[in-house]
Amino acid sequence: MSFSEIKAEDLLAVAGVKVASVMSGIRYKNRLDLVLMEIAPGSTVAGVFTLNAFCAAPVQLARQHLAQSGGAIRYLLINTGNANAGTGQKGLDDAAACCGFVAQHAGVEASQVLPFSTGVIGENLPVAKVEAGVPNALSALGDEWLQAAKGIMTTDTRPKARSVRVDCHGKSVVITGIAKGAGMIKPNMATLLSFVFTDAAIDQALLQQLLASVVDQSFNRITVDGDTSTNDCCVLVATGQSGVSITRANTAVFERFEDALQSLVRELAKDIIRDAEGAKKFVTVDIQGGAEPQECLKVAYAISESPLVKTALSASDPNWGRILAAIGRAGVPALDVSRITIHLGAVCIVQNGTLATTYTEAQGQAEMNKAAIDITVNLARGSARETVWTSDLSEDYVRINASYRS
Amino acid sequence: MSFSEIKAEDLLAVAGVKVASVMSGIRYKNRLDLVLMEIAPGSTVAGVFTLNAFCAAPVQLARQHLAQSGGAIRYLLINTGNANAGTGQKGLDDAAACCGFVAQHAGVEASQVLPFSTGVIGENLPVAKVEAGVPNALSALGDEWLQAAKGIMTTDTRPKARSVRVDCHGKSVVITGIAKGAGMIKPNMATLLSFVFTDAAIDQALLQQLLASVVDQSFNRITVDGDTSTNDCCVLVATGQSGVSITRANTAVFERFEDALQSLVRELAKDIIRDAEGAKKFVTVDIQGGAEPQECLKVAYAISESPLVKTALSASDPNWGRILAAIGRAGVPALDVSRITIHLGAVCIVQNGTLATTYTEAQGQAEMNKAAIDITVNLARGSARETVWTSDLSEDYVRINASYRS
Repeated sequence: MSFSEIKAEDLLAVAGVKVASVMSGIRYKNRLDLVLMEIAPGSTVAGVFTLNAFCAAPVQLARQHLAQSGGAIRYLLINTGNANAGTGQKGLDDAAACCGFVAQHAGVEASQVLPFSTGVIGENLPVAKVEAGVPNALSALGDEWLQAAKGIMTTDTRPKARSVRVDCHGKSVVITGIAKGAGMIKPNMATLLSFVFTDAAIDQALLQQLLASVVDQSFNRITVDGDTSTNDCCVLVATGQSGVSITRANTAVFERFEDALQSLVRELAKDIIRDAEGAKKFVTVDIQGGAEPQECLKVAYAISESPLVKTALSASDPNWGRILAAIGRAGVPALDVSRITIHLGAVCIVQNGTLATTYTEAQGQAEMNKAAIDITVNLARGSARETVWTSDLSEDYVRINASYRS
Repeated sequence: MSFSEIKAEDLLAVAGVKVASVMSGIRYKNRLDLVLMEIAPGSTVAGVFTLNAFCAAPVQLARQHLAQSGGAIRYLLINTGNANAGTGQKGLDDAAACCGFVAQHAGVEASQVLPFSTGVIGENLPVAKVEAGVPNALSALGDEWLQAAKGIMTTDTRPKARSVRVDCHGKSVVITGIAKGAGMIKPNMATLLSFVFTDAAIDQALLQQLLASVVDQSFNRITVDGDTSTNDCCVLVATGQSGVSITRANTAVFERFEDALQSLVRELAKDIIRDAEGAKKFVTVDIQGGAEPQECLKVAYAISESPLVKTALSASDPNWGRILAAIGRAGVPALDVSRITIHLGAVCIVQNGTLATTYTEAQGQAEMNKAAIDITVNLARGSARETVWTSDLSEDYVRINASYRS
């Protein structure tokens, strides 16, 4: 899939944040697998976390530390290669120990450190390797954001990182974010791993509202395989060091900042889909005319997660009957299929619930051959609209996930 | 996957039913694709149908004819190669025309004929080919049940047919059934295509109750890919020609018959899983200890339809963390994961929500290497229990469905 390569110089440093990425050998040798992020005192920090009931030990501890410390979080510690999920009390102890290593070397409280893990579920975290890696990471802190984006990758083939400078009344603020994820992607009301930073000043309550709102329209609107992870987290940090204060009262600046943040986070979410395991297609599923948003989402996810729709997409086969079958099983009550229209790109395939008289297979094939495919469904029941981004299902997806632990 | 081959002589004729299977060239040449079944006057007929909102024209018409004619159904006409779904009014007219061909040649009313179609969605039915095939089928009616089972196949690699003789107070009754299906399998409250016949006498109301009950514990408990078809139907016919009457009043005979019917239909459902597209594994997902049946089903389907669990099964990888992640995202309210146990066959993998201390990877690997795999989860919240049968997700599934229309 087409993907514009990120260069180190495209990523903007954020005043008040330093990052480091080191090799600690958690699962593989010679691979960046431990990332440390240092946040200046006085910053505010917000987080959203997976709703998977089997949420990982670091997720539980991060949530707890965030509640205890409020804005006093000073470090984020992220390891790959091991999810520390399904590990019971030992997992919680291990995550706490990792926070302790940072606290001890940096001279802060353990509750001021948020831990994050990603990788294989159900194995104990090799704590000694994290312990050895922490001093190296502390001494390497700097502005190497691309290295940090690489350091949190697992089955990702490319780092995901975005930066933007927002003009606020003549002063500028910076937003820089990184993300990882390629499989086990359906961030149910939370997200995968993503860390977003700004040098704007935003109070804790507003920061949490902003994060929840932008995540809902970005990471919460993507699915690779319908599998919500045990370790999803997204954190938003505001250091305040630009001197620009974002408040709702300051409407114009607030809206400009919110738009920029939403746009950046949405692109990070789309980057995940662009790098989805085995994927060749970037698919936008746009459901219009719903009676309410939830039924639009039901239809969008029924299409986005249908193995039959996804294999047809993989084969560039305009097998629209599978889209229709997915809509029909989505569980929308009293759905009048005779009013439904379906478009593939600009091509009308289905009108009034059946094949459009103007449709030709050649038109459908031309749309399907594209790397980016738009599926638009109009339910003609109301004015609700929701968009979900997804990928195709290829033999490579199966191959990757059949061999992931080997 | 291991599969005991069905021989023609294993299938018992049902007094009062004749079947025929012919080649009519609907999609492919030299392939059985049109099956006719003749039912003696005085028989009772029950049916259950897909709940997909985009249900196919023949499904709509069959439901209507069944309601109109009650027990007076005389013929079932099944074509493969074309689902006649998403075809609007033209599709309904075409299905009606097919019933008309049978009615005209056999001297019955069109409403005494139930039409069924399976195959590609969204193309118009080649009615002239059906018209040419019907007289051939009428003249070929006999007891060739294996041919009938072959005649309704699409991507199936093997015919699915089962027979049993049930002793009822010294007299015997016969039950013979056939089924088809390999992909787009999640028969939501209905089923794929299956036709089951008995020479017992059963009144219409009881027949419908029996059918709904046995389907709920068989076809409604399987999933290949979560995709509910537009064309699922299951029909149960009782000719009465054995002279044995099945009523609820006759408790011992009723229970023996119901058990035999349930067992036969469940095996037909399992045959579908054994022949699932690209599948190498037959997987039984048994959820115990639920507070109520629906939450057991949520967990069972979350596991059964997780692409990550299914690819791990395909690779014989005891990657139990994926099972745990699927349970966690199943949407069971207030789930206490610390009480959950998971078994793979007889091997306890997870106890109290985390890796069992007795577990070894070698044990898990030995279970995963089997062709039939039992996943048992105990939620420890109550006494509800539900079982779902499913298959793995292989590269072959993707290959089959990427090339199905070509």
